[in-house]
Amino acid sequence: MNLTGRSLVTIDDLSNGEIAAVFALVDEMSYSIKEQLTVCRGKVMASLFFEPSTRTRLSFEAAMHRLGGSVISAVDTKATSLAKGESIADMARVVGSYADIIVIRHPWEGAARVVADYAGVPVINAGDGGHQHPTQTLLDLYTIKKERKVIKGLKIALWGDLKYGRTVHSLIFALAKLGANIIFCPTPGFEVPEHVIQKLIAEYGGELERLEASEQAGKEGGSPLDAIYITPGSPHQLAMMPNISIQVELKRGVDALYITRPQKERFATGEEGKGLKTRYPVVDKKLLKEKEFEKTLIMHPLPRVDELACELDTDPRSMYFKQAARGVPVRMALIALLLGAKEVTVPDKEGSSTGIDYPAYRQDLGLKCPNPRCVSVQESEIKYIKPSFKRVSTKPMTLRCTYCEHGFEPKYVASSHWHEGMLEYKKYHSAESHWARTIRPENLIVFNSAGEAEARGFKPSHYATVPHKKNDG
Amino acid sequence: MNLTGRSLVTIDDLSNGEIAAVFALVDEMSYSIKEQLTVCRGKVMASLFFEPSTRTRLSFEAAMHRLGGSVISAVDTKATSLAKGESIADMARVVGSYADIIVIRHPWEGAARVVADYAGVPVINAGDGGHQHPTQTLLDLYTIKKERKVIKGLKIALWGDLKYGRTVHSLIFALAKLGANIIFCPTPGFEVPEHVIQKLIAEYGGELERLEASEQAGKEGGSPLDAIYITPGSPHQLAMMPNISIQVELKRGVDALYITRPQKERFATGEEGKGLKTRYPVVDKKLLKEKEFEKTLIMHPLPRVDELACELDTDPRSMYFKQAARGVPVRMALIALLLGAKEVTVPDKEGSSTGIDYPAYRQDLGLKCPNPRCVSVQESEIKYIKPSFKRVSTKPMTLRCTYCEHGFEPKYVASSHWHEGMLEYKKYHSAESHWARTIRPENLIVFNSAGEAEARGFKPSHYATVPHKKNDG
Amino acid sequence: MNLTGRSLVTIDDLSNGEIAAVFALVDEMSYSIKEQLTVCRGKVMASLFFEPSTRTRLSFEAAMHRLGGSVISAVDTKATSLAKGESIADMARVVGSYADIIVIRHPWEGAARVVADYAGVPVINAGDGGHQHPTQTLLDLYTIKKERKVIKGLKIALWGDLKYGRTVHSLIFALAKLGANIIFCPTPGFEVPEHVIQKLIAEYGGELERLEASEQAGKEGGSPLDAIYITPGSPHQLAMMPNISIQVELKRGVDALYITRPQKERFATGEEGKGLKTRYPVVDKKLLKEKEFEKTLIMHPLPRVDELACELDTDPRSMYFKQAARGVPVRMALIALLLGAKEVTVPDKEGSSTGIDYPAYRQDLGLKCPNPRCVSVQESEIKYIKPSFKRVSTKPMTLRCTYCEHGFEPKYVASSHWHEGMLEYKKYHSAESHWARTIRPENLIVFNSAGEAEARGFKPSHYATVPHKKNDG
Repeated sequence: MNLTGRSLVTIDDLSNGEIAAVFALVDEMSYSIKEQLTVCRGKVMASLFFEPSTRTRLSFEAAMHRLGGSVISAVDTKATSLAKGESIADMARVVGSYADIIVIRHPWEGAARVVADYAGVPVINAGDGGHQHPTQTLLDLYTIKKERKVIKGLKIALWGDLKYGRTVHSLIFALAKLGANIIFCPTPGFEVPEHVIQKLIAEYGGELERLEASEQAGKEGGSPLDAIYITPGSPHQLAMMPNISIQVELKRGVDALYITRPQKERFATGEEGKGLKTRYPVVDKKLLKEKEFEKTLIMHPLPRVDELACELDTDPRSMYFKQAARGVPVRMALIALLLGAKEVTVPDKEGSSTGIDYPAYRQDLGLKCPNPRCVSVQESEIKYIKPSFKRVSTKPMTLRCTYCEHGFEPKYVASSHWHEGMLEYKKYHSAESHWARTIRPENLIVFNSAGEAEARGFKPSHYATVPHKKNDG
Repeated sequence: MNLTGRSLVTIDDLSNGEIAAVFALVDEMSYSIKEQLTVCRGKVMASLFFEPSTRTRLSFEAAMHRLGGSVISAVDTKATSLAKGESIADMARVVGSYADIIVIRHPWEGAARVVADYAGVPVINAGDGGHQHPTQTLLDLYTIKKERKVIKGLKIALWGDLKYGRTVHSLIFALAKLGANIIFCPTPGFEVPEHVIQKLIAEYGGELERLEASEQAGKEGGSPLDAIYITPGSPHQLAMMPNISIQVELKRGVDALYITRPQKERFATGEEGKGLKTRYPVVDKKLLKEKEFEKTLIMHPLPRVDELACELDTDPRSMYFKQAARGVPVRMALIALLLGAKEVTVPDKEGSSTGIDYPAYRQDLGLKCPNPRCVSVQESEIKYIKPSFKRVSTKPMTLRCTYCEHGFEPKYVASSHWHEGMLEYKKYHSAESHWARTIRPENLIVFNSAGEAEARGFKPSHYATVPHKKNDG
Repeated sequence: MNLTGRSLVTIDDLSNGEIAAVFALVDEMSYSIKEQLTVCRGKVMASLFFEPSTRTRLSFEAAMHRLGGSVISAVDTKATSLAKGESIADMARVVGSYADIIVIRHPWEGAARVVADYAGVPVINAGDGGHQHPTQTLLDLYTIKKERKVIKGLKIALWGDLKYGRTVHSLIFALAKLGANIIFCPTPGFEVPEHVIQKLIAEYGGELERLEASEQAGKEGGSPLDAIYITPGSPHQLAMMPNISIQVELKRGVDALYITRPQKERFATGEEGKGLKTRYPVVDKKLLKEKEFEKTLIMHPLPRVDELACELDTDPRSMYFKQAARGVPVRMALIALLLGAKEVTVPDKEGSSTGIDYPAYRQDLGLKCPNPRCVSVQESEIKYIKPSFKRVSTKPMTLRCTYCEHGFEPKYVASSHWHEGMLEYKKYHSAESHWARTIRPENLIVFNSAGEAEARGFKPSHYATVPHKKNDG
């Protein structure tokens, strides 16, 4: 197994074995950082940042320079020809003909996938909207591994904005994949999005113990506890207790507390930011003074604002500056591997744990991804990118966008098999009706609303309305 | 003949022989791109981009890195000391003392000339307003040459915005110089500017067969055909036909179709952009399905917006991504030659075909270039740059600005010889009067209006008014 | 004595001997600039510019490239994570873990000190608000030294905006330290700030002969003469004359005339910019035509706007483009020394002349630096940076901020010794009363207003009001 020529768009692009192999090379490079100066000599990295960033971009560029390579970079949409209305697919093709590897940060979710599809050279996703930020995840994992030796079986609490924090989404899947248990401690209103939860349960096979909202409120005002995800590989006493208390669970101590700042720049409404200063809990010495936090790693992807007190900076448990510093060797190893300047041997048995191959949704009847931040619905992209979905569940009927990976549940379904040649059979049914599940994947047609179905010439069947649910008409 | 130390401001700065020599080096470098890594070692290129750009800047920077050189770059006026009111002449002098070569893109027409005049190191024009973009032209020509073996005698159609597209202006002169025939197919309202046409006829000695506007309209709504330029070296059956039909001509097939996007960022008025989406013709499979386009190269300088359908991307005739990719070796060869890191031998007989040496206009009586985008009329520059003109024609009396190369016809003339010492002789005449042509170049004084002449103390002569024309008073 | 690992935040960070040693290395590098290409091979410089700049940034980056090193750079706050509310202390720590040396320009005064405190790698101040710009000073001094062989005893006139020009502030201290005499010729309204004058007199021990404002006005409208600073080491006939006339003094000729543009971007009010074009004197051939200016070096840090006529550009006395060009070897030498890639031997006797060690102000009672541009009072920084002051004088009682080096005279004082444990002794006194001077440095408490003192529970003593002055109550 070889990483040469491959791209890293989501953390799922690397199997557990590959992650371990990358980490082995990080170790090697960290110990002899000055000896890597010829590894990528003559190679050019394009660093394309269409969102503000200092640390990630500088970290990638420093990594390339320490490998002896060169960097060409473009920062901010205003300074680029994207302002002229060009598609990122075109940009990817052109820059891919200049550079040997591309690092891309972009506000549109799924943008890095498009770049990887068109560039013709390896592409590293340095953050695409609220979707993923896999190299941040690699350095987070590397830090945990380095400090705790293993990741499997650890208990990791995620704290703060779990809704918009893309670093958190990448991390959740990676931790699940590597067998860690996760405690969700979101600031109220910033819970992990449903599509992330769904993917977590469906693909990593663990269990989610969730606290009812009513139960949580009142008990301990402002407490950020929400749910615990327990990986299948590490059965856990909680799973055996009917009345789970994650308050209690957190108090038993965690191996790492991963804090994120409120991602204000992604808030959907002004409402979300209101009163944040009082609602958003601050992690400080007092919070971590109890004995059960004695060995807890304090982690943060940085930049921080107010959510992590600087009095902890000198605390030996604080890992955040170490995390940042490790970004350079982690990215060095990754770049060298994707460029084929270094090779690693990955045992075959250590394949990816997310090998589920969902059936594709193939009908081209104008279905669009309902996520407004998805790259596939942007005006400059729709002429190049065909919307593309996978059917990840039939109960409820759930499609997932191939680009932004948002999952959604269309309300109505039809079958292309039934009506071929016979107009009177163009009927649509509720996605919750038993008919829905009888449709073969290759024939499935979905609609987000009855109006959409009727606009395409479909008429409601007897199963279009599900009695016990309100029909959206 | 040697390119060391020279600048490339307009495509005229290179003779046909020099262009051929550059292309020979491009061939050589393309075949062994990884062996060029020491060619410019230790050299520093300054990349100064005062207008948005991704591809051009990244292409230049990648080229320098692949030659083993270093790059210092400044992007966007807001991030530079130009915001402090500094002249580009000063900037050129200072940056010229830091770097070994300068690449400049600037919105002011003629800006690259100023930088070349002051920098003291080789300067490459990477686009100066609507004036020129000679390295784009080099890679366009290189692509045509590579695909068709020769350029002389080919029939090249230029399509779209021929008014504001600087890449098109550079290309027109180069094609004429190299002996190609050019078919102008502008979107109505975006015809080739008069000063370009004038220079083309005056300096390259070809013939222009033009369709009357009235003839064009009505015939085939929205057809973008306008005129054909026929080079003197390649007599053409059309030139012998009195009733030329360029509709028919285009239908006979062209060797290359060169498409440009509407250069919205340069539109003089909001009017120009109105209804552009319907007026601007789209090049797609349907348009190119006829047999006569079977071997037509589809070219575009990119970025494209809507004028070139992406269904053509996989068409073997499509050259645009190849063009972009060739930008790197073309710029590598050019940089290496200007820096003297590589040398080429150019046969003397292959000199520039634009050897016309027009007389300079030498009077310093406050004449300003009438082009508001010209570098010579900008507030920060007027204290450093003396306006400078050449008299390129006497019938009609036409001056051309040395910086932006716009030509214009002043309304009135006078002679400095007549009035020396004798105030009563300070008379001005219509530029169209026969007196105008008797004035010796070194004595010529011109005025854009009668008011301007009178402000300088000149009085109208009997020849100030040309009877059959309205006087501007 | 060794420069390895040290930072350059203010020009005081280098002793006279160290400056001489740097200059020796500049000489060496200038003579063999192409042989320096391996000096910093493998080293990474971070170039962080949070204010517009072309020349300084490009000069630093060119310097690093000519040493064979690499550069990672971030320009403009909008393109950085500072926009996310991060403190510069955090940023310094993170970037310090990516790069081997940091160059920082920032609008906040004292910002470079904070970066140096936290980065863990050498830091070079490339301009922090109106505070200092020590590498500009180094190249100014190097130019004077190169042209005049010595600096000691020279007469240097500073011209124009002496209030906001940070290059001027760095230069004043350096010239004083090196024994030059300085003639202040500010544009009226742009005099040298009081805190600079105070530091100059207190720490460099010279004398300041100042013209009364009334005397200056009227005499010769718009004349920019203000004061002369005479260094102790070079006694000067003026110092012996009771009725000093600096008009006359300037007319005796100066060794260098150092001109600065109006630093409009720092003006505190719109008022300051009004009518500047007429008020701001222009240095031109006419001004410098007298015999006494025959050998005067004409200097300017650039960029210039209108204050220095371009007719002087070809004048052999003009040094400004030479200054700019020397920026590269000066910065090469400095970077190489701080990185330990080169070493110099500095004789011990040539220590810094500013060895005064003022007592620190240690009370933590909420005193803030009154300079609104100081880094220590910025919202994102106050949680990390403790305000810090030194007591530089007791008559009048004067504190100096450790970050921005602004000096200020608090109105009231108290002693922490007097009231310990006894509330009735919490009394405050006028800073001008004799009590103030009896308070031991370690016990000193200061207040900027009576209200501030009373808010902390202090009550006025008999000495709170100084009879002959108005109390601010």
